[in-house]
Amino acid sequence: MTADTRRILVIGIGAGDPDHLTLAAVKAMRRADVFFVIGKGEEKSGLTDLRRDMLDEHVPGPYRVVEAEDPWRDRTPQDRSRYASAVDDWRRRRADVYERLIREELAPGEHGAFLVWGDPSLYDSTLAILDDIRGRDTVAFEHEVIPGVSSVSALAARHRIPLNQVGRPVHITPARHLADRVGEGPAETLPDDGDVVVMLDAHQTFTRFTGGDLWIYWGAYLGTPDELLVCGPVSEVADRILEVRAEARARHGWIMDTYLLRHHG
Amino acid sequence: MTADTRRILVIGIGAGDPDHLTLAAVKAMRRADVFFVIGKGEEKSGLTDLRRDMLDEHVPGPYRVVEAEDPWRDRTPQDRSRYASAVDDWRRRRADVYERLIREELAPGEHGAFLVWGDPSLYDSTLAILDDIRGRDTVAFEHEVIPGVSSVSALAARHRIPLNQVGRPVHITPARHLADRVGEGPAETLPDDGDVVVMLDAHQTFTRFTGGDLWIYWGAYLGTPDELLVCGPVSEVADRILEVRAEARARHGWIMDTYLLRHHG
Repeated sequence: MTADTRRILVIGIGAGDPDHLTLAAVKAMRRADVFFVIGKGEEKSGLTDLRRDMLDEHVPGPYRVVEAEDPWRDRTPQDRSRYASAVDDWRRRRADVYERLIREELAPGEHGAFLVWGDPSLYDSTLAILDDIRGRDTVAFEHEVIPGVSSVSALAARHRIPLNQVGRPVHITPARHLADRVGEGPAETLPDDGDVVVMLDAHQTFTRFTGGDLWIYWGAYLGTPDELLVCGPVSEVADRILEVRAEARARHGWIMDTYLLRHHG
Repeated sequence: MTADTRRILVIGIGAGDPDHLTLAAVKAMRRADVFFVIGKGEEKSGLTDLRRDMLDEHVPGPYRVVEAEDPWRDRTPQDRSRYASAVDDWRRRRADVYERLIREELAPGEHGAFLVWGDPSLYDSTLAILDDIRGRDTVAFEHEVIPGVSSVSALAARHRIPLNQVGRPVHITPARHLADRVGEGPAETLPDDGDVVVMLDAHQTFTRFTGGDLWIYWGAYLGTPDELLVCGPVSEVADRILEVRAEARARHGWIMDTYLLRHHG
């Protein structure tokens, strides 16, 4: 690493509560010359504003903000193999965008930052995309990762529950994978081999597990003033979550939610 | 909640790097009148010092620190059911200690804090113990949880890897549970149903998976000046990890390590 190496900071900024920023994240933000912001479209402007507020509060400047459009992503494929290839395709095009930002908008020796919601290690593509670009050998850079409070930790904290039971595992899983696992048709309940945290659920997969002793701990807009929390037996609270979720989604134009499923034996 | 309610703050302080404290954790620490410190014995005094440094740096005071001995814990049982009952027994005795601290050392209306390594939701007993005490109805209190950067997030950040692969789950599991799952005798490799993060491994369970394409991303004393990182195919780096781990453990008198296992197909 020499003085004219480009440096990328991948900074976890927590799931929505600005106070979930770590001291390390604040220090890293202050080292950045450029912040790269990838537009997700209008509907998520609430999140983008929050990021901008963090900069205003913690970074005296000067710094540049460079925005770019997120490439279009095909979200229709339902089965796992086509989903993975659609994601691969989208990632490649996103890598094209990032590569251009790093090459054209970041001078040698400067620090460029990506502010990542939650923790960069959980269901975020930034690290894989940077590895992809590194493999292309078109622009040299170093990168560093600053971990953040994940939405999973924020969910557990707000419900004041551990994620795991004594001596048992916790599984963090995309909803799509959970749905594949239980197959088509009605599913009475989940096998009890540990707690399950479900991410990225656009189809409210929990409504399929209404039997047995399964509890849900659900949260949306975690850590923000719009936060919503519901918990109880799935059989009793599923309808309430559907209602609350639909109403909030209509009001905000977007929703980010996650939940834990746990057997209460 | 009235002005004379006792309030407990369960504060995640990150896995070892003092800069992994969140702004919320710092604010919560400044609200505390009393910090409860449960002694783990001499060998972990490095960790206790780190906690004290955090208070010195971030909390102008005044505050009290109340120390108590951790009840003795039987760590010998190997099978799951006896392990769970040994943990239950230890927790009950630890709850006795916490209950006394809350009743005798925290005045009504005051804030008492437990500083928890990593994130309070992952493989930490504080939340379950507080629920136990609440169930006894012997002392009334409210409690609040401030999430932290877990050792799992810190591990991934230092290796600059995501915890999960696209569309796939990640399983966080105590080593004991993983060992139960693969049974006795040599185990060639792990089923490839997602990445596995292994916690609390006193027996270096990874050494059993030397076949196939399994990689390990291992870290100890994460975020501290003593941090150790090793990664590579298990078949190639297992011996090096055993060596590095034994040497570090002998030198420090204790070790805290964790690792991710991932198939590289």
